[in-house]
Amino acid sequence: MLQHEVNEKEQQQLETEQLLEALQNENIDEFRAVFLEIHPYERSKFYAKLPKDARMRVYLFLSPTEMAEVFENLEIDENEYEELLSEMDPTFVADMLSQMYADDAVDVLNELGKEQVASYLTIMDDEAAGEIKQLLHYEEYTAGSIMTTEFIAIHANQTVKSAMYILKKEAPRAETIYYVYVIDEEKRLVGVISIRDLLISDDDTMIHEIMNDRVVSVSVSEDQEEVARRMKDYNFLAVPVIDFQNHLLGIITVDDIIDVIDEEASDDYSKLAGISDVDSADKSIFTSAKKRLPWLIILSFLGMMTASLIGRFEATLDQVAILAVFIPLIAGMAGNTGTQALAVAVRRIAIGEDEEENKWLLILREAGTGVITGAVCGTVIMFVVYFWKGDFFLGLLVGFSILITLIVATLAGAVVPLLMHRLKVDPAVASGPFITTINDIISILIYFGLATFFMGYLV
Amino acid sequence: MLQHEVNEKEQQQLETEQLLEALQNENIDEFRAVFLEIHPYERSKFYAKLPKDARMRVYLFLSPTEMAEVFENLEIDENEYEELLSEMDPTFVADMLSQMYADDAVDVLNELGKEQVASYLTIMDDEAAGEIKQLLHYEEYTAGSIMTTEFIAIHANQTVKSAMYILKKEAPRAETIYYVYVIDEEKRLVGVISIRDLLISDDDTMIHEIMNDRVVSVSVSEDQEEVARRMKDYNFLAVPVIDFQNHLLGIITVDDIIDVIDEEASDDYSKLAGISDVDSADKSIFTSAKKRLPWLIILSFLGMMTASLIGRFEATLDQVAILAVFIPLIAGMAGNTGTQALAVAVRRIAIGEDEEENKWLLILREAGTGVITGAVCGTVIMFVVYFWKGDFFLGLLVGFSILITLIVATLAGAVVPLLMHRLKVDPAVASGPFITTINDIISILIYFGLATFFMGYLV
Repeated sequence: MLQHEVNEKEQQQLETEQLLEALQNENIDEFRAVFLEIHPYERSKFYAKLPKDARMRVYLFLSPTEMAEVFENLEIDENEYEELLSEMDPTFVADMLSQMYADDAVDVLNELGKEQVASYLTIMDDEAAGEIKQLLHYEEYTAGSIMTTEFIAIHANQTVKSAMYILKKEAPRAETIYYVYVIDEEKRLVGVISIRDLLISDDDTMIHEIMNDRVVSVSVSEDQEEVARRMKDYNFLAVPVIDFQNHLLGIITVDDIIDVIDEEASDDYSKLAGISDVDSADKSIFTSAKKRLPWLIILSFLGMMTASLIGRFEATLDQVAILAVFIPLIAGMAGNTGTQALAVAVRRIAIGEDEEENKWLLILREAGTGVITGAVCGTVIMFVVYFWKGDFFLGLLVGFSILITLIVATLAGAVVPLLMHRLKVDPAVASGPFITTINDIISILIYFGLATFFMGYLV
Repeated sequence: MLQHEVNEKEQQQLETEQLLEALQNENIDEFRAVFLEIHPYERSKFYAKLPKDARMRVYLFLSPTEMAEVFENLEIDENEYEELLSEMDPTFVADMLSQMYADDAVDVLNELGKEQVASYLTIMDDEAAGEIKQLLHYEEYTAGSIMTTEFIAIHANQTVKSAMYILKKEAPRAETIYYVYVIDEEKRLVGVISIRDLLISDDDTMIHEIMNDRVVSVSVSEDQEEVARRMKDYNFLAVPVIDFQNHLLGIITVDDIIDVIDEEASDDYSKLAGISDVDSADKSIFTSAKKRLPWLIILSFLGMMTASLIGRFEATLDQVAILAVFIPLIAGMAGNTGTQALAVAVRRIAIGEDEEENKWLLILREAGTGVITGAVCGTVIMFVVYFWKGDFFLGLLVGFSILITLIVATLAGAVVPLLMHRLKVDPAVASGPFITTINDIISILIYFGLATFFMGYLV
C-alpha cells in the first residue's frame, strides 16, 4: 500500500476511536469537534456503522442541519431508512428533511409508507414541503425523479454585476453554482452561462450578450439512463430539466449521474450472472443463497426439461452410447455463443440503439456472426473428432451440429432480448444462465435430431 | 419520442446539412458561423463522420485552437488517431496538441509511434511540450495517466481578493475553476478552497482562515479505479494528485472519471460474457466473429477435454444409458452457480475489498452458500427424479451429485478469480464461459465418479 494511503487510514482509524469514546463518555464538545472536522462522506460512513444506542446519542449531539448532511451522503440499503428515522423525534426528522437538498430528501421519503410521508410533510416548513411534494410526483427512473430544485436562475437583461450578486447570495444553498440558468418572464429556459464566463466578463456586460442560448436540456419525463448518456457525452456538470413548454423545473447534477451510470452497469452485470445484486459483502450466507436460489431453481426445472428431451432419444443413446460424450461440448458451445450475443444485444439496447432498422440489422449481423463462428468451430471440431475417434461420420455429425447450433444459438441470444425489449420487459433479465439453458435445449434437439435421422450411418 | 427531443433532432439534422453544403461550396464564413455555434461535442461528432476530402477542408477552415477542441471531445477508435493526424500539416498538429488540455493531448499521443511523438514534441512550443512529456511518463491506468496539469494554485497567506484575481486571470485556461488548491513555498499541497467559499467570503479574509486543510488527495501511482471510487464516494468534481512528498502534481476532473467508471464496468461485463468488448455497433460481422472466436475456440478445446473425460466412463454409460440424460442438468447447474460466485468475487475485488482476511471470509461464505443452495436444489431434484423415473437410487445419485457439484462449483467460482488476483492477472478474465467449462468438467467427474462407484445399485 502507498505511504500516503497508510497515513490516511491510520488517521481515520484514530478519529473513529476518538468519536466512539466521545459518544460513550457523552462528551458532546469533543464529539462535535472531531465529527464536524471530517469530510461529510466519512461522517455518514461512521454513522452507518454505529449500533442503535450510539446513534441515539448522535441525534442529541447534532442539529437537524448537521444530520441532513449525514443523510445526504448515506449509502445504506433502502429498507434501513425507515428504522433510522423511527429512532428520531418526528419534528427533528421533518427539520432534517427540509434542510436536505430536495432530491436527496425525496430519495429518503420514497422508502417510507405513504402515511409517514404525509405526516412528515405536514410538520415540515411549507416551502420545503412544497418543493418535495412536486418532486415526489415524478416516476422513478425519470429525469424528474433525480432532479433537484435548488438551482440559480437569472434574467437576460441583467448585468454581470447583478448576476454575481444573486450568485453570491444563493451560493450557500444552491446544489451547484457552476452554471447559472437564464429564464424569461414566464420562467422558460432561454440560456445558460457558466461561472467561468461570469468571472472573466466585465461588470457592466449584459447577460444576453454573453449567455449561450443553445442550451442542451432534458425533458422531465426522460429516462435517467438517457440523461446519463447525454451528460457523459457533453461532459456537463449539470443539465437543466424542462417541461414540454420549455419551463425550467430543476437541474440534475453530475454526482447523481455517476450513481446512475454505476447502478445501471452493475445491474446489467448482475443479471448476466443470474443474481439479484452483487454489493452484498456484509450479508449472511442465507441472504446470498436466497438471492441466488430463484435462478438456480428455475434453471433446474429447465434442466429437467433438457433431461426429458434427451430421455426421448434413449433408444438412439442405447444404440450409440458414444453420442453422450459430446453432449457437454455441444451444449457448452451453444451456451457460450448465446451469452456473447446476449451481452452485445443488452448493451446495445442500453446505449439506446433500439430503433426499428437497427433491430433487423442487429439480427442479421448476429446471424452472419453465427455462420462464421459456426463454420470455423464446426470445421475444427469435425477434424479433431475424426482423428480422435477415427470415425469420419461421427466427426461430420458433431461438426455439423456445432455449425447449426452456433447459428441458432447466436440468433437466440440476440432475438430473445430484443423481443423482451419490445414487450417492455428489461432485456437484461434474459440473463446468461437463462439463455444458456434455452440454448442447451436447442442444441440437444439439433444434435440428437441429426443423430437419429442419420442413425444408419452411425451403427 | 418527446416533442422537445424531436425539435432538437430536427435542428441538428438541419445544421448538419448546412455544414456539409458549406464544406462542399467551400463557403468558409457560413461553415464557421454554424460550426462554432454548435456544442463542442456535436462538432466532434460531425467531424468524426466526415469522409477524408471533407476533413481536409475542415483543417483549412479552422484554427489549431478550434481543432484542439474538436479533438478533446472526439470519441473514435484508438487506431484512428494516427490516420487523422497524418492528414494534417505537422506544424498544425503540434499547434493543436499544445492547445489541448495536457491530459487529452497525452491520450492522443499515446496512440502514436515513439518517433512521431518525438517529432511533434520537437516542433511544439516548449512549455506545452514540457507538460506533456511529464505526463507521458506515467503508466497507463494510474492516476498520473489521467491527470491534467492545468489547475489553479494559490498560497495560504493571500487574501480572498488576490485569490479571485488569480482565478479570473487563469479561468480561461484551467480545466476546472471550481476548486482552487493551496500550496506552500515548496509546492506541497496544504489546503483546498471551493469557488463557492471564495465567493461568499469577504475580500480581506485570508485564505488560511477559510481553506480546508484536510484535503482528500490521491497518489500519482494509484490505480484509476481506486481514484474513481474515491471521487464517487466523496462526490468530488476534481481531486488533487500528489507525489510521496505531498507535492501537488496535477488534478483529475470528474468527466475523466465518468469515462473510467463506464469503461471498467463494461469491461467486466464483456469479460463475463467472453467477448473482448461490446461497443461495436458499426463493426462488420467479421470483426464481431474475430472478437468472439478466441473464447469459443479455447472453450471448444476445453469441451473436448470434457468429452474425453466422459469417454473414460463409456463402460458405465454402455451399461446405464439413462445416466446421459442428466449430464446437461448437472453440468448446467454447476456452470450457473459458478458464474454467480464468479460475478460476486470479481465485483468485490473491483470495489477493493481484497484484503487478506476478506479473502478467507469470501471463500468461507461461498462454501456456506454452496452448501445451502446445494442442499435445496439437490433435495428438490432428488424427489423429482425419483417420482419421474420411479428409481429411488437414481434420484439419490442425481440429487447427491447436485449437492456436491454445487458446493465445489461455487467454491471454484470464488477461488479462481481470487487466485488470479493474487497472481496479478485481471480476475475478470476468469470469465463466465471459462468458469462454466471448468465446472462442466468438475461436475462430470463427480457425477460419473459417484455413478461408477455405486454401479451395483444402478443396474
